[in-house]
Amino acid sequence: MGKTAIRTAVKADLNKPAWEQPQLHNRWHPDIPFSCKIQPGEVVNVECLDWTGGQIGNNDSADDIKNCDLSRIHYLSGPIEVEGAKAGDVLVVEIQDVQPFPEQPWGYCAIFDKNNGGGFLDSHYPNAAKAIWDFEGIFCSSRHIPGVRFPGLIHPGIMGCMPSQELLDTWNEREAELVAHHHSIGTDRIVAQLPNPNYAFAGAGDAEVAAKVAKEGARTIPPREHGGNCDIKNLSRGSKSYLPVYKDGAGLSIGDLHFSQGDGEISFCGAIEMAGVITIKCEIIKNGVADMKMKNPMYIPGPVEPHYGPSRYLTFEGLSVDENGKQHFLDVNVAYKQTCLQFIEYFKKFGYTGEQLYILLSCAPVQGHLAAIVDIPNACTTLGVPVDIFEFECLPKEGGFKPIISSDCALTSDK
Amino acid sequence: MGKTAIRTAVKADLNKPAWEQPQLHNRWHPDIPFSCKIQPGEVVNVECLDWTGGQIGNNDSADDIKNCDLSRIHYLSGPIEVEGAKAGDVLVVEIQDVQPFPEQPWGYCAIFDKNNGGGFLDSHYPNAAKAIWDFEGIFCSSRHIPGVRFPGLIHPGIMGCMPSQELLDTWNEREAELVAHHHSIGTDRIVAQLPNPNYAFAGAGDAEVAAKVAKEGARTIPPREHGGNCDIKNLSRGSKSYLPVYKDGAGLSIGDLHFSQGDGEISFCGAIEMAGVITIKCEIIKNGVADMKMKNPMYIPGPVEPHYGPSRYLTFEGLSVDENGKQHFLDVNVAYKQTCLQFIEYFKKFGYTGEQLYILLSCAPVQGHLAAIVDIPNACTTLGVPVDIFEFECLPKEGGFKPIISSDCALTSDK
Amino acid sequence: MGKTAIRTAVKADLNKPAWEQPQLHNRWHPDIPFSCKIQPGEVVNVECLDWTGGQIGNNDSADDIKNCDLSRIHYLSGPIEVEGAKAGDVLVVEIQDVQPFPEQPWGYCAIFDKNNGGGFLDSHYPNAAKAIWDFEGIFCSSRHIPGVRFPGLIHPGIMGCMPSQELLDTWNEREAELVAHHHSIGTDRIVAQLPNPNYAFAGAGDAEVAAKVAKEGARTIPPREHGGNCDIKNLSRGSKSYLPVYKDGAGLSIGDLHFSQGDGEISFCGAIEMAGVITIKCEIIKNGVADMKMKNPMYIPGPVEPHYGPSRYLTFEGLSVDENGKQHFLDVNVAYKQTCLQFIEYFKKFGYTGEQLYILLSCAPVQGHLAAIVDIPNACTTLGVPVDIFEFECLPKEGGFKPIISSDCALTSDK
Amino acid sequence: MGKTAIRTAVKADLNKPAWEQPQLHNRWHPDIPFSCKIQPGEVVNVECLDWTGGQIGNNDSADDIKNCDLSRIHYLSGPIEVEGAKAGDVLVVEIQDVQPFPEQPWGYCAIFDKNNGGGFLDSHYPNAAKAIWDFEGIFCSSRHIPGVRFPGLIHPGIMGCMPSQELLDTWNEREAELVAHHHSIGTDRIVAQLPNPNYAFAGAGDAEVAAKVAKEGARTIPPREHGGNCDIKNLSRGSKSYLPVYKDGAGLSIGDLHFSQGDGEISFCGAIEMAGVITIKCEIIKNGVADMKMKNPMYIPGPVEPHYGPSRYLTFEGLSVDENGKQHFLDVNVAYKQTCLQFIEYFKKFGYTGEQLYILLSCAPVQGHLAAIVDIPNACTTLGVPVDIFEFECLPKEGGFKPIISSDCALTSDK
Repeated sequence: MGKTAIRTAVKADLNKPAWEQPQLHNRWHPDIPFSCKIQPGEVVNVECLDWTGGQIGNNDSADDIKNCDLSRIHYLSGPIEVEGAKAGDVLVVEIQDVQPFPEQPWGYCAIFDKNNGGGFLDSHYPNAAKAIWDFEGIFCSSRHIPGVRFPGLIHPGIMGCMPSQELLDTWNEREAELVAHHHSIGTDRIVAQLPNPNYAFAGAGDAEVAAKVAKEGARTIPPREHGGNCDIKNLSRGSKSYLPVYKDGAGLSIGDLHFSQGDGEISFCGAIEMAGVITIKCEIIKNGVADMKMKNPMYIPGPVEPHYGPSRYLTFEGLSVDENGKQHFLDVNVAYKQTCLQFIEYFKKFGYTGEQLYILLSCAPVQGHLAAIVDIPNACTTLGVPVDIFEFECLPKEGGFKPIISSDCALTSDK
Repeated sequence: MGKTAIRTAVKADLNKPAWEQPQLHNRWHPDIPFSCKIQPGEVVNVECLDWTGGQIGNNDSADDIKNCDLSRIHYLSGPIEVEGAKAGDVLVVEIQDVQPFPEQPWGYCAIFDKNNGGGFLDSHYPNAAKAIWDFEGIFCSSRHIPGVRFPGLIHPGIMGCMPSQELLDTWNEREAELVAHHHSIGTDRIVAQLPNPNYAFAGAGDAEVAAKVAKEGARTIPPREHGGNCDIKNLSRGSKSYLPVYKDGAGLSIGDLHFSQGDGEISFCGAIEMAGVITIKCEIIKNGVADMKMKNPMYIPGPVEPHYGPSRYLTFEGLSVDENGKQHFLDVNVAYKQTCLQFIEYFKKFGYTGEQLYILLSCAPVQGHLAAIVDIPNACTTLGVPVDIFEFECLPKEGGFKPIISSDCALTSDK
Repeated sequence: MGKTAIRTAVKADLNKPAWEQPQLHNRWHPDIPFSCKIQPGEVVNVECLDWTGGQIGNNDSADDIKNCDLSRIHYLSGPIEVEGAKAGDVLVVEIQDVQPFPEQPWGYCAIFDKNNGGGFLDSHYPNAAKAIWDFEGIFCSSRHIPGVRFPGLIHPGIMGCMPSQELLDTWNEREAELVAHHHSIGTDRIVAQLPNPNYAFAGAGDAEVAAKVAKEGARTIPPREHGGNCDIKNLSRGSKSYLPVYKDGAGLSIGDLHFSQGDGEISFCGAIEMAGVITIKCEIIKNGVADMKMKNPMYIPGPVEPHYGPSRYLTFEGLSVDENGKQHFLDVNVAYKQTCLQFIEYFKKFGYTGEQLYILLSCAPVQGHLAAIVDIPNACTTLGVPVDIFEFECLPKEGGFKPIISSDCALTSDK
Repeated sequence: MGKTAIRTAVKADLNKPAWEQPQLHNRWHPDIPFSCKIQPGEVVNVECLDWTGGQIGNNDSADDIKNCDLSRIHYLSGPIEVEGAKAGDVLVVEIQDVQPFPEQPWGYCAIFDKNNGGGFLDSHYPNAAKAIWDFEGIFCSSRHIPGVRFPGLIHPGIMGCMPSQELLDTWNEREAELVAHHHSIGTDRIVAQLPNPNYAFAGAGDAEVAAKVAKEGARTIPPREHGGNCDIKNLSRGSKSYLPVYKDGAGLSIGDLHFSQGDGEISFCGAIEMAGVITIKCEIIKNGVADMKMKNPMYIPGPVEPHYGPSRYLTFEGLSVDENGKQHFLDVNVAYKQTCLQFIEYFKKFGYTGEQLYILLSCAPVQGHLAAIVDIPNACTTLGVPVDIFEFECLPKEGGFKPIISSDCALTSDK
C-alpha cells in the first residue's frame, strides 16, 4: 500500500541522437504534440539531455565548443500535457529535486567563440575555452580551474509552457523587427535567432507539423513571457515557478539543466551544463493570469540554497563608464561588464588566466545586483562573490597576493 | 581607565542651514579643506544631515518634493583627513553603526517630478509624491503606505574619498562629452549634472577655493570610481568598504543616510532618507590600489543584514521587451523596468496605488538581480520581494486578492 | 578520459535479510573484518539499510513498531578500511550527498512502546505509534500527520570508527557500572544496553570472531567518543566530521540514515528512518587527536541546510519544574521535556493528537537549545519550530485557533 | 505633525545608587507599585542599569567580581503598567532596539568565584576572573581576550510580568522544598536563593510594602513561568515575546541587558553585561493564556541576528560521560559540560588560558544544542562556535596550531 518509485514521465537516452527521441523537441510551437500526460499533484521525473544534446565531451580541448552547431541545441523534454490546464490558468511547477545522471557525474562551462554565440565579455575574450567540472555529491570542482570548489545551486535553465499561435506570431514579429532594424543601420551583430529550419525538431510531430515548426517555430535561446530560457540560478530544489498557460493542456517543456550558474550566465554557455533528472509536481491556479495580472512568470526560491552569511561575500562594483573611459548614460550592461572585469583583474593576481576567471564567474553562484540606476549618468552594479568557494584566502590585504595557480582551462587546438 | 564615549569627528546641526556649517560641503574637489582629522583604527561618530539639508518636511503634501532644488543637495560630512593615508593606498572604512538622530525618528521616500529629477519609472509616474516613514527602533512603517513594516538595512548612500585634480578633470570631461553628444542628437533629457556654481558649497574653503569648487567641483549625484553616491543598500552595519585614495590624507566624505533602500533606488529619492549618525573606523592598506588592481571600490557586507530565508521572497521577472511590445537587444534597463512594473501591477490588486508601490519598491529591501544577459535578444532581470514586510498574506493563490488598502501617499497640492 | 560513475564501496540489498549480508554488522568491535577498502580523497557511495534492517512496513498499523526486536538493529555498512589511517589520526569524513533509494521513496518515524525502547516523553505517551513519510524530492509529507510538509535535512544517524580493544573495554566497564548502580538502588529502568549475543552480527567475521563480538561487542545505541549513534541532525550534505581513529585502517561504519530529525530525536525512533545511499570522501589528519586535543568528534555543518530566517521560528520555553510542579535543580532534561510538552499543548489546539505532535517534534527540523543553565534553580531550554513547515497559519493570535485536523497517526491494533 | 522623539518611560541614573531610584526594584512581588504607565501600541524607551547596579568597574582586576554582593543585584526597570492588560491575557513585547548608553560603551563578562555564585564549570575554574569588552558600534572586542571580535546579539537577560500572589507563593514553596530536600541529604551546595530581606528593594513601595517584599519577594536569579531571568540570547532587536499576565496592568519589568551571550550563559555572569536603553512596544492578546494553553513564555526571534552561514560553525560534541570516565544516564548537564571543556581544550592550543576561553564561551554567540537525548545511556550535546569571530584561522588542520596569544584576562589581586 505504500508509495512506489516516482514515475518517469519523460525518458531521455544519453546514447542515442537527440533528434531520434520523439519525446524531445527544440523549438517552441503550439502544434508540437504532447509527449506525455501528467496529473495535477502528481510527482514525476523528467529526464533531460544537456543543452547541446551531447555535442560536448569530457576532454581537454575546446574544439567541440568552437565548432558547436547552435541550430542543434536545446533539446527539451516535453511538451508535457497537464490534465485540466486551460489557457489563462497559471501552472505552478514545484521543483522537488534536480540530479545529474549517476553514470555521468560531470558537466562543462565554456566560453563561446565571438563568431559562434559569443558572450558578455566577447570583445575581451573572443576565443573558445572550456572547463570540465566533476561532481562530488552536491559539490563540484574542475581540473581546469584549480583552487575552487562549491556546492551547486542546481536548476533547469529552461522551463515554460507552449505559446499560443498568437503569442508565437508576436514573438516572431517583434524579433524580426529588431533584426531588420539592426540590418537597416548596418550592424552585422547577430541580435536574434529567427526561425530556422536547420535541425528544427518537432518531436513526435508528423511531416506536416514538422514543416510548420521548422518554418515558424520560435528558437529556444531567449527567455520570453512564457519563461523559456530564463537561466535564473535560483530555480533550484524546492522552488515554485508560476507559469502562464496559453493552450489547453499547458504543454510544459523543460531542459538545459545546470549544476550551477552565476547571475547573468555571462559567458553564454555560462552555467555548468549537464544532463540529468528533474523531479517536479504541477498544480493549476485557475484563471491566474488575469487574477494576478501576470505578464511574465513569477517564482519563489526554495529553502535550501547554499548560504554563506552576508559577510562572506567580496563584492565588486562597476559603473557605466566603459574600459575606454567613455561615459554611458545609466547603461546597466556597461556597468555590469565593468563589474565583471574588476572581478577578473582582482583574481588574476592569484595566477588565474582571464579565461579561467570568465568561466568561473559564469558558473559560480555569484550575485549580480542592480545597485543604483537613477544617479545620472552612472548606473552602478555589484557582483558578490562568496569567498568560501576558494580553497585559499582571498580577502583584500596589505601586500597583495602571490600567484598560486599556474595552469589554464581547456583551449582550442590552434592556441 | 576604561573607554569613554566615542568621539564625534563631525558634528551637524539640524537647526541651522547646511550652507552655514563649514564641516559640510556639496561638491567633490581636492581643494576643499579637511574638516577634521582622524587616526587609523580610531572609532568616531560622523553626524550627517539628510541629503537635502532639511528641505523636506514631515507632513502630508509632496509640494516640497516637487519644488526641491537639486542644486542644493548632498551636504556631505567631511572631508575627513585620515592620518597617514597616501595617494595609491586603499582606505578601509568599517561601518560600525548607523542611527537616526533620537530627536528625529522619521525619514521620507519620494517620487520626483519628471521635470525635476525624475526617476526610473517617470514615464509611468511623472508626478511628485511622498511617503513619511516613522522609525520604531530597527523597524519602520508609513502612514502613507499602510500594511507594510520592515526592519531597515540602514546605510549611507554616499561615501568616498576626494578625487585628485586629474581624476576630477577626467570626470568633467567625460560627462561633458556625454551631454554634448546628447545635445548633438537633439535629446532634451538631462543626462548628467555638470559643474554648477549655484549653491555650490566648499565647506571651510576660502573665497578662492570656493570659486574654484563652484566652477569645476564635481556634482554629487553619480557614483564614480571613488565611490560617491553608490546607493548600495548593503553598506550597512558591519560592512567594510575598500575605497581608493587619490590625495594624501584621503579626504573621506559621507552623507545621504538611508534607513532602507531597495536595489536600484528606483524612484531617485528612492531610499528612506534621513539625518543621523554614522560610526566608522578607518584602516589603510598601503599601495592597495596597484596591489589589488582596483579601479572601483569593493566591499564586504556586514553580518547582521535582515534575513528572511530564500523561500520568503516572491520574485518577479522582466524581459527587454518594453510595455509597447517592442523588442530591445539585451537591454537590462528595459528588462528591470518591466520587472518593476510587474511588481506594481501585482500589488495593485490589494488596493495600493501605483505611486504607493513605486515608492515602496524604492525603499523596501528588494533584491534586483541581473538573471541572464546573454540569451539574445532578451535580457532577463528579477526582483525579489520579501513577503514578510507585508502584514497580510500576499503569496499567489487561486481566486486572486481583495483590495484591502484604500488610502494614498502624500501628493502635491494640485492633485 | 572523463570521470565515470562514483564507485559503490558498500552495497546493501533491500531484499535480503540484513544478517546475510557480510558487508554489514551490528556491533562495535575491533575484530570485525573490514568489508572494503577506500583511498583518502576517493569519492564513494555507501549503501545502507534502514536502522531495523527492514522490520518496519509502509502501512497503517504500529504493530511492527510495538514488536520491533531491539537486539536486531543498526545494521551498519562497513567497517571501511581507509588506506593509510593510523591510530591517533583524525579521519575527516565529508558527506557529499545522502539520498533514499529511488525504489523506496518513503520512511517512518515512530513512538516506541514504553516497555520496548520508550522515549523522552514515554511517561506521557507510553504506547507505540507510527507515521509514514513520503518523499517528494527534497520534501516529505505524511498521510498520518496532515498539514505539514518540509524539506529534509538528510543525514546518517550513525558514523564512527571502530574502537580499539582498550576503548571497547572502557565502554563496557563504565556502562556495566551504571547498570549495576541502578540495580543496586532498585530501579528497573533499562539504563544501558550491555553486550548481548542475541542477533549479534559480526559481518564477515569467522566463527571465532563472531563469538568474541557476540560476547563483548559494544551495542550501537549510544553515541560514544568515536561518534557512533550521535543522531546529530546537521551532519548533512556538505558537512565535515572529524572522527578519532583507534586502529590502523580506521574501520569506518555508517548507517541509520535519516531523512530528517529534530534536536533530541525525542521519540527514540524519532527521525524519519530510511534506507539509502550516502556519498562520502575521507581525508586523514595525521596525529590529529593529540594535535587538536580531541576526545570526541567535531564537525562543520554543510552550506545547504534549509533556512527560514530567524523570525520564522516560533520558540517555546521550558524550565526545570516538572509537570507536577516539583522544582528540580538546573536539570536540563526536565526543562527540555517541559519545553516539548508546551509545543504539544499549543498545537493540539489545531486538532492534532498528542501522538502526532510527539512524532512531528521528533522528526521535523526543530532547534533545541540550552538557553540558560546557571540561574539556580531553574535551567531554561528553548525549542524553535519553523512555522513554514505548516501549511496553515500558526503564529499566536487573538481568539485562539480552530481545530482543522481530524485524523490520527498509525496506532497499534489493540487501540 | 510628525513624530517626535520616542518617550522614555523609565529613566535610570548611572551616577546614583540603584536603591535610591524608585523606578527600579530587585524582587518579584505583586505589591511593588507600578513605576510608570504605557499604552498598548506605544513605543517607549526603558533605561536600565547593569545587573549589579554598577558594582563592577572598567579595570584590570577581578576583585570586584570576587566580592560582588549577590543580594544586591538585578535592579530592574519597572514594573510598567500596561493599560488594559488583565490577568489571563498575554502581553506581546516587541523589542525594537537595545543600545548601550553612549557615555558607557563597554561591558564585562566574568567568572564568579565558586563560593560566590559559581558557574557551570566552577569545579574546573573556581576563581573569579573578568574581561572588559569595548563596544564599537555593533561590534565588541576585549583587551583581556585578544584575537576575537564579533557583533553583539544584544538583548535583555530579564523580562517578565509581576506574578500574582498565588503564583509567588507557589514559587516560594517549591523552591523551599528543593532547599529543604538538599539540606536533608546533607549537601551544602546552594541550590536556590530564597527570599532574603538583605538589600531587598521594593521601588516606590512604602514601608509596609517594602517589608512584605523583603520577606516574601521572589529573588530574580531564576527564570520562572513569567519569563524573568531567562537569559535567552535571541531576544534581540525585532523579537516578539509572549508573556503571561497575572495581574491587572501586567507590571512588566526589564533589566540585565546583555551586549552578547552564548547559549547557557555558562559562567553565570556569562554575558557581556551592560547598562543601556531598550526600546519596546507592547500589545495585548486578550485571554491568550487559555486560548494558547500557555504555561511558559513563547517568543519569535528578530530578523536581524548576525548570521554566518552554517558551514562557518566549528561544532564540538560531548557525552554524558564525565571527565573521570564515569557513565551518567542521559544527563544533558554532564554532556554539555564535556562539550564546553572540549571547546576550551581545542582553543588552548592557540595560547589562551582556560579562564579566557571559559569567559569567551559564555559571551560569544555560540549555539548549544541538545543533539540526542534518547540513546541510552549517553546524551549528546553540541556546541557550535562561529569561526568568523576569531581574527585568525582556527579550523582543524594537519600539524596542529601554534600559540599566538600570550596574555590573560583580569584576575583577582591574590593571583
